[in-house]
Amino acid sequence: MRILIIGTGGTIASARTEKGYKAALSADEILEVAGIKKRNGLIIETEDILNLDSTLIQPEDWVTIGEAVFRNLSDYDGIVITHGTDTLAYTSSALSFMLRNVPIPVVLTGSMLPITEPKSDAPRNLRTALTFASKGFPGIYVAFMDKIMLGTRVSKVHSLGLNAFQSINYPDIAYVKGGELKVLHRPEVPQGEVIFDPLLDPNVVHIRLTPGLSPEVFSSIGEWSHGIVLEGYGAGGIPYRKRNLLKAVERVAGEKPVVMTTQAVYGGVDLTRYEVGRRALEAGIIPAGDMTKEATLTKLMWALGHTADVAEVREIMERNIAGEITPRG
Amino acid sequence: MRILIIGTGGTIASARTEKGYKAALSADEILEVAGIKKRNGLIIETEDILNLDSTLIQPEDWVTIGEAVFRNLSDYDGIVITHGTDTLAYTSSALSFMLRNVPIPVVLTGSMLPITEPKSDAPRNLRTALTFASKGFPGIYVAFMDKIMLGTRVSKVHSLGLNAFQSINYPDIAYVKGGELKVLHRPEVPQGEVIFDPLLDPNVVHIRLTPGLSPEVFSSIGEWSHGIVLEGYGAGGIPYRKRNLLKAVERVAGEKPVVMTTQAVYGGVDLTRYEVGRRALEAGIIPAGDMTKEATLTKLMWALGHTADVAEVREIMERNIAGEITPRG
Repeated sequence: MRILIIGTGGTIASARTEKGYKAALSADEILEVAGIKKRNGLIIETEDILNLDSTLIQPEDWVTIGEAVFRNLSDYDGIVITHGTDTLAYTSSALSFMLRNVPIPVVLTGSMLPITEPKSDAPRNLRTALTFASKGFPGIYVAFMDKIMLGTRVSKVHSLGLNAFQSINYPDIAYVKGGELKVLHRPEVPQGEVIFDPLLDPNVVHIRLTPGLSPEVFSSIGEWSHGIVLEGYGAGGIPYRKRNLLKAVERVAGEKPVVMTTQAVYGGVDLTRYEVGRRALEAGIIPAGDMTKEATLTKLMWALGHTADVAEVREIMERNIAGEITPRG
Repeated sequence: MRILIIGTGGTIASARTEKGYKAALSADEILEVAGIKKRNGLIIETEDILNLDSTLIQPEDWVTIGEAVFRNLSDYDGIVITHGTDTLAYTSSALSFMLRNVPIPVVLTGSMLPITEPKSDAPRNLRTALTFASKGFPGIYVAFMDKIMLGTRVSKVHSLGLNAFQSINYPDIAYVKGGELKVLHRPEVPQGEVIFDPLLDPNVVHIRLTPGLSPEVFSSIGEWSHGIVLEGYGAGGIPYRKRNLLKAVERVAGEKPVVMTTQAVYGGVDLTRYEVGRRALEAGIIPAGDMTKEATLTKLMWALGHTADVAEVREIMERNIAGEITPRG
């Protein structure tokens, strides 16, 4: 059993400096500090490709990470990616759209406390990830606090607590305890040839709908953004009273995709439910359904990497590609 | 014991129409459908001031609602406000900054299902609100699913489920069962003269930090927005690699306030923790601490209603006004 650990930095690789925590350790050093022996039934190899606080990770880095995974798929039985937690859910989502039909488990993990701290969660998360990478099934997943979650369904929900990730609107995939794997929900594992399709258009902006938001927001961000994620309230809808955002959205939604997600954590959007939602649909809004905000953003970038046609982007956004959306019944 | 119910619309007042649910019922009709007798030890009076889906509520409406509360404070022992759930947490936050030292309980409530539906949560939420309005203590609160939460600490976390609100980074205030009130956490109840201070500047925009976000976002939204809420990752920080948002923020943060909140649900921001956070502080970012996103936005509008001076806005944002922020230790 051969496992590859790809290091990209993050708190799991960080050390205390005068300016706060900063990414510093290699994947080899992480393994050593975590006390994980490199030969233990398993052959663990490591490759460092980035060493960044994940706040600094950019869409181009997803391609770099995806390329490293793709290049190594046939040489290993599983791959673990160590990554900062701040944008981990974006990376796991983006990788899921770019890399399809992976034949082995690809598991992202990280930690909330640096591995050099006595109470660090890094060794525990690493062991969970290694267990799933060697015993789990194909696909792109996130391992955190004994849980395995689907890569397109995770969000970071806590900025400080160790149980920082949740699977949103989707069950956890598995639970790991004492090196044993308990499968909770087996997602559809796609068959077929591996595809590495990393075309992305990063020129997307995400705006939160808030009371009083000026309709000017859509014209002023017009030039450089090729797609907009609009984070509405609850089940979704667009205000048209006093400040007519609906009219502004209607104007922009013909030229570029405007996708509506929700500021609620759970439940997703359902634009058929309320009058304000139906009017949003009529204005050309694309509903994000029950996708996470991270999946919505990265899927929109990926869709725009393939087409600028709004109708085609809509078709891609509404279609399930990597378990990220529950198709409307 | 005299209680006033102020009706503003929302799902709790809504009826099914061909175009989806739409606000329609008066507060009197809500009471009647809920089977709550207007005389039952209590004298319940009603006043309808708005009849809106709360997606349509604008900052000017907060002033209308606040004025109605202020005008009735001395005539009642408690006030209940029925409101749509979508922007309820914005209204409860805004009212808490505008209306200080209220001498009676002011309780906002709503429902996820229209009161005309058989399984509606409206009667239950109304009873919880009425119980706290008659037996609770002064301040501005939200009642939902048997829970009483501080008005500045609630967020809508579920777009479909009935337990849709949570108190974020702060304990629930009370629990209501069978008309009995169980106090869980008694917040500081401010003494002093009632203040109605409704000055707001609604020209605020909330942008989510996402990988690849163009630094142009800050210059393009420059003209009409007087303040920016930037929703960072985890504990907070601003990227400066490839796309230098830090430099763009530094330019704008001298002229108008840029407040950083977090896309994590729990835990708030701590910009001293990581290098990317410290550099954000040096660039002039104002940390939102553990405030909810709704409190952050409405407090920024309220601060800008009083001053355009960035240093003064910073002082207001970091000061605890209505229980919304845990001051830094």
